[in-house]
Amino acid sequence: MTEIVTAGVLVIGDEILSGRTKDQNIGFIAEYLTNIGIDLREVRVVADDEAVIIEALDALRARYHYVFTTGGIGPTHDDVTADAVAKAFGVGIDHHPEVVARFRERFTEAELNEARLRMTRIPDGAELIQSATILAPGFKIGNVIVLAGVPSIMQAMMDIVSPKLKSGARMLSETIRANAREGDIGGPLRALAEAHPEAIIGSYPFLDEDRKPNTNLVVRSRDPEQLRVAVAAVKDMLTKLHTPH
Amino acid sequence: MTEIVTAGVLVIGDEILSGRTKDQNIGFIAEYLTNIGIDLREVRVVADDEAVIIEALDALRARYHYVFTTGGIGPTHDDVTADAVAKAFGVGIDHHPEVVARFRERFTEAELNEARLRMTRIPDGAELIQSATILAPGFKIGNVIVLAGVPSIMQAMMDIVSPKLKSGARMLSETIRANAREGDIGGPLRALAEAHPEAIIGSYPFLDEDRKPNTNLVVRSRDPEQLRVAVAAVKDMLTKLHTPH
Repeated sequence: MTEIVTAGVLVIGDEILSGRTKDQNIGFIAEYLTNIGIDLREVRVVADDEAVIIEALDALRARYHYVFTTGGIGPTHDDVTADAVAKAFGVGIDHHPEVVARFRERFTEAELNEARLRMTRIPDGAELIQSATILAPGFKIGNVIVLAGVPSIMQAMMDIVSPKLKSGARMLSETIRANAREGDIGGPLRALAEAHPEAIIGSYPFLDEDRKPNTNLVVRSRDPEQLRVAVAAVKDMLTKLHTPH
Repeated sequence: MTEIVTAGVLVIGDEILSGRTKDQNIGFIAEYLTNIGIDLREVRVVADDEAVIIEALDALRARYHYVFTTGGIGPTHDDVTADAVAKAFGVGIDHHPEVVARFRERFTEAELNEARLRMTRIPDGAELIQSATILAPGFKIGNVIVLAGVPSIMQAMMDIVSPKLKSGARMLSETIRANAREGDIGGPLRALAEAHPEAIIGSYPFLDEDRKPNTNLVVRSRDPEQLRVAVAAVKDMLTKLHTPH
């Protein structure tokens, strides 16, 4: 049996909670983690408030193998993520010499003000997540991975950090279009799900091209053979359903 | 002083955590609540798992005036929200006569199978959220409002339930385009935020039309006069910044 590796995501930002900014990171990270064999189990969105961030972070990092945070690592007063993470881990936080050196190459002395230097503050013992195209680095401390809030930068950081993460067997999935209303297949589908506990079977209604109610059935398993068996059972169920009798 | 009314959102669904479905409800509800004077403080996304839903629901409903859930009220075995809510409140759950009567008008006897009747199961004492165009109703029990996961239906339900909610003074906001890099205004902005604790000032970097780094400053307050004063201070700060010296 391969170990199951789990994760939580903590999205940090008043602008998401006010609705001003529509989050694009949850969906990206969810799909990314599924693809590399990490199970996303929970997401939380909280405000730019140090105490609130610490509480959510402590809850998630105790519960899952990894926690990914997004947002709050910029140069302004409302960017409090790095401080919150340092406090959660009970470590100090200071200007990181390597990041400061990179900033000195990139900025003039006049530009290198206190606000910009704020982005070089990294909790003690954290590992940097950076590249030539990333200004303010992300970092990894313990099982917490701190990413930018801007989607393109967050995505670049995921590519840098992901090879360093342990991952489990990838969750495989297959989607079967039922060509039936969810209410018509709910009964046989329940029986089928109970008969195949080794697979996870989800049912997702949608309106098709003709605006008619239809259903996608998604079968998931870490084991290719178990997936195949459950998918065959679903298809068999649908064939019987669609055969006039 | 007007009371501040707070809310949490609980998004329920394996498909969001796997990344298969990209959530559209968080952003909609966030904006909606801001507009009607309710402060969204926290969002959680959890799996279709009764125990997990109950735990998150109990945490959120104890903490905020209202909790809005989305997802998990359809006809299939993976729709467990109504049962989880009933258990969280320690009440029974049964086929609701009014909903069953509506289903009898809409479906033939053959169509009215156990799966469809599952959608008529409502926790005891809950108030229905329904209309002629909504098949499976949402419901409100205590401070918990249970909504559909399909965005169009969820949105219709919000319109039905929102007039029944108490709301506080609306959070007002004004966005000022800084025409400056975030790192250049971080210092004066921090001083300004500290001098105007009655307003909340957020800083959001973006790339402008010429792909140049720019910043939106968002000033928020429930008091129009305090908002005006803080906005004027931000504009004054920017004018000084942009004046050659």
